[in-house]
Amino acid sequence: MIKEEDLSGWYHELLEKADVVDSRYPVKGMLIYKGWGLSMIKRMQQYLEDMLDLNGHQPVLFPVLIPEDILGKETKHIAGFEEEVFWVTHAGGNELERKLSLRPTSETPIYEMFKLWIRSHSDLPFKVHQSCAVYRYETKHTRPLIRGREFLWNEGHSAHVDDDDVKSHMEKIKEIYLRLVNELLCIPFVVNNRPEWDRFPGAAETCAFDTIMPDGRTLQVATVHNLGQNFSRAFGLTFENEEGEHELAYTASYGPSFGRLLASVICIHGDDVGLILPPKIAPVQVVVIPIVFKESHREGILSYARDIEKKMRDNGFRVKVDDSDERPGAKYFYWEMKGVPLRVEVGPRDLKQGNITVVRRDTGEKKQIALDELDVESMFEEITLSIRERAEKRFRDGFHTIGNLDEIKEHAGNGIVRVGWCGNKDCANSIEEYVDILSVNGGKRLCVVCGSEGVEVLAAKTY
Amino acid sequence: MIKEEDLSGWYHELLEKADVVDSRYPVKGMLIYKGWGLSMIKRMQQYLEDMLDLNGHQPVLFPVLIPEDILGKETKHIAGFEEEVFWVTHAGGNELERKLSLRPTSETPIYEMFKLWIRSHSDLPFKVHQSCAVYRYETKHTRPLIRGREFLWNEGHSAHVDDDDVKSHMEKIKEIYLRLVNELLCIPFVVNNRPEWDRFPGAAETCAFDTIMPDGRTLQVATVHNLGQNFSRAFGLTFENEEGEHELAYTASYGPSFGRLLASVICIHGDDVGLILPPKIAPVQVVVIPIVFKESHREGILSYARDIEKKMRDNGFRVKVDDSDERPGAKYFYWEMKGVPLRVEVGPRDLKQGNITVVRRDTGEKKQIALDELDVESMFEEITLSIRERAEKRFRDGFHTIGNLDEIKEHAGNGIVRVGWCGNKDCANSIEEYVDILSVNGGKRLCVVCGSEGVEVLAAKTY
Repeated sequence: MIKEEDLSGWYHELLEKADVVDSRYPVKGMLIYKGWGLSMIKRMQQYLEDMLDLNGHQPVLFPVLIPEDILGKETKHIAGFEEEVFWVTHAGGNELERKLSLRPTSETPIYEMFKLWIRSHSDLPFKVHQSCAVYRYETKHTRPLIRGREFLWNEGHSAHVDDDDVKSHMEKIKEIYLRLVNELLCIPFVVNNRPEWDRFPGAAETCAFDTIMPDGRTLQVATVHNLGQNFSRAFGLTFENEEGEHELAYTASYGPSFGRLLASVICIHGDDVGLILPPKIAPVQVVVIPIVFKESHREGILSYARDIEKKMRDNGFRVKVDDSDERPGAKYFYWEMKGVPLRVEVGPRDLKQGNITVVRRDTGEKKQIALDELDVESMFEEITLSIRERAEKRFRDGFHTIGNLDEIKEHAGNGIVRVGWCGNKDCANSIEEYVDILSVNGGKRLCVVCGSEGVEVLAAKTY
Repeated sequence: MIKEEDLSGWYHELLEKADVVDSRYPVKGMLIYKGWGLSMIKRMQQYLEDMLDLNGHQPVLFPVLIPEDILGKETKHIAGFEEEVFWVTHAGGNELERKLSLRPTSETPIYEMFKLWIRSHSDLPFKVHQSCAVYRYETKHTRPLIRGREFLWNEGHSAHVDDDDVKSHMEKIKEIYLRLVNELLCIPFVVNNRPEWDRFPGAAETCAFDTIMPDGRTLQVATVHNLGQNFSRAFGLTFENEEGEHELAYTASYGPSFGRLLASVICIHGDDVGLILPPKIAPVQVVVIPIVFKESHREGILSYARDIEKKMRDNGFRVKVDDSDERPGAKYFYWEMKGVPLRVEVGPRDLKQGNITVVRRDTGEKKQIALDELDVESMFEEITLSIRERAEKRFRDGFHTIGNLDEIKEHAGNGIVRVGWCGNKDCANSIEEYVDILSVNGGKRLCVVCGSEGVEVLAAKTY
């Protein structure tokens, strides 16, 4: 498993060995989440949901099926999704009177209900979120957790009195996503304002969170869309303003992909040995390994290990004593592969002296300390900082300022390039022969294609 | 909202007013879970998942789509479900090469993977569970949370070396369900061993948890199935035994319906005012109402209320200060309707004396106590006990011993009747003209239809 040499092979092997997912399910692009992976996704989900609830969102859960007429109400939206929709046409032995789609995203059914839930300006802003699976019939090459036909996310939907309120809400959501992506998961990112042709179908503005994977391609892990009044118009979503007049609401929608976030954690932090997990999402945060040389020591060492486990558990940490029959070396190897942030070894000498040996997964650093000195909380903070800094250094090194098309060709697939673009779609097409334009909101620069005045854009090979 | 007079009207009105679910979604039998309802379901789910994890289950999440050939492998199983399956036949503009069903239950895809995950007797018992939605095209009258075409549950699946191990595992699962249904939710139940014609399709034995709803009909809230070797045979699910020979595994599956459990909580505990919630699942456990007569008191009382909130929150309780502009009476009415177990009122005199006034939702009992004396934990225990006892008394009163068919007719829809049955299917059919036979495992009694020797069975009108 050499990550540098074969990221894809390393990734697939690790997903299976570490019980993250099983990709052998007999439907293309759909996979089984297993214990280790599911537990991390649930932690991300809970962390995000708590922040959204605190921000005033109501948690909801909508049906997975959307009737064809509702999915089709906003014309640009359905045009963008119609090639990707799974259709339920039959039930039991009968053909259904109207086709039902598996939700590719839930703007349409949610606005259908917003119409019933929102009456007046005093109901606004109105904010809901749901954690669920969505379904897209991807024709591109699928990859576990990165591009699938069924994927897990949280989608937020909000309605507002005006565009200003949408914009300030979008800023709050970006802060919340920053906390999820960077504070919790230690993943660096840049927020890109997507060019018109790459926006969410029906959106007036799409801001995307892009990170850089170790193979130099960018991965979009979350998006925040300003939908203007497009959907409100299609759905007749109005509210009574302070003057008693009916006005169309302004709406926004936003969501991170839990699968892509997990894929980023695996690929960006992991190494040849296996996963390296940020402590806050690790299903097991500390593994305690009893080192027994002589049978006569076994009971004493095991009970010492259990005391340590209990103490840590009482302090709210997820701890496991590995008292299986494997040799210590095999245990080290296994739990390092699983990415457990901290290993505690306890042998006969430790027991005698009231010491423990602690080993960090991220650096391999090993030290013997008195049990009383152990401060798991601070160690986790150090580990988190160190994982984040390492990832951020590589992320910064992944940016390149480019002067001509040949250099683009050279750097394609090698991080994010900064180039000038004049705003002309033909020139964009020339750039996009090599890299996708991620955002168009930079300072002044000459176009890398035609040499006219333009702005700096970010571009990269993307997943 | 008179519950006794019109249970169904009372139920539908309360679901909407209390933000439990919204039934106006434009697909028959599918509904939207809203904040108050979803929060309770998530608490049930977490409580159950923790117990299953502790019992050695691995949490998993399978795709919602099952290919037709896999769903059809066990012939009795597919015969039982084929009238109820939703089919995905198209994606994008194309017809799929093989039809995909929305899972009506997940035995079939799970055994397809068990085949890859299980090698030898040392892998057994092998236990997984998943919390998910399942899909059944119900042709019967649908009711929110009780009978829907999409419903939320947790399904457990296990493989074992022999039938004894299946049976002892089933007993453990029944204990876990008892804790969920009775300890957490205070719902009384009887476990019924279903007659052959009412078993899960493909099962050798089906044990069902039945409770009695206030209209006298029984509601099945959970089931535990012994599947013998039926599914193992169909799926080629074998393991290597200690002698190195390949043997078919024995399997079990089991699941409670979160929607039906929530419906039971609502209908069994609620009253004309609204919900009455067991404290452990209440989204808000304590509401603090500041009573302000004079503006000059406002700040002092509000800060007293906040102190109480903080103190309780630090102790792990879910508390809310209602400082809205409504009058106190309106607030009482609202939070009683929502079922919040405990109300704390703080007025000027309370503030002066360091007192609070506490009011129990379940009994209406109101008392003034010193703030220092408040012991929320014990009050919640008392409330839980009292709710459970009240429900259990009504449950016991719902059983009737019946001597002839006329009495059955009289008592149909009036709880559970105990009658004799000879084992002959014709006699069962005569009984089932009025009531469904729930279980066939009682002591000796003469058949209520033909008078021959038989056994006592339980029967009722069912949802």
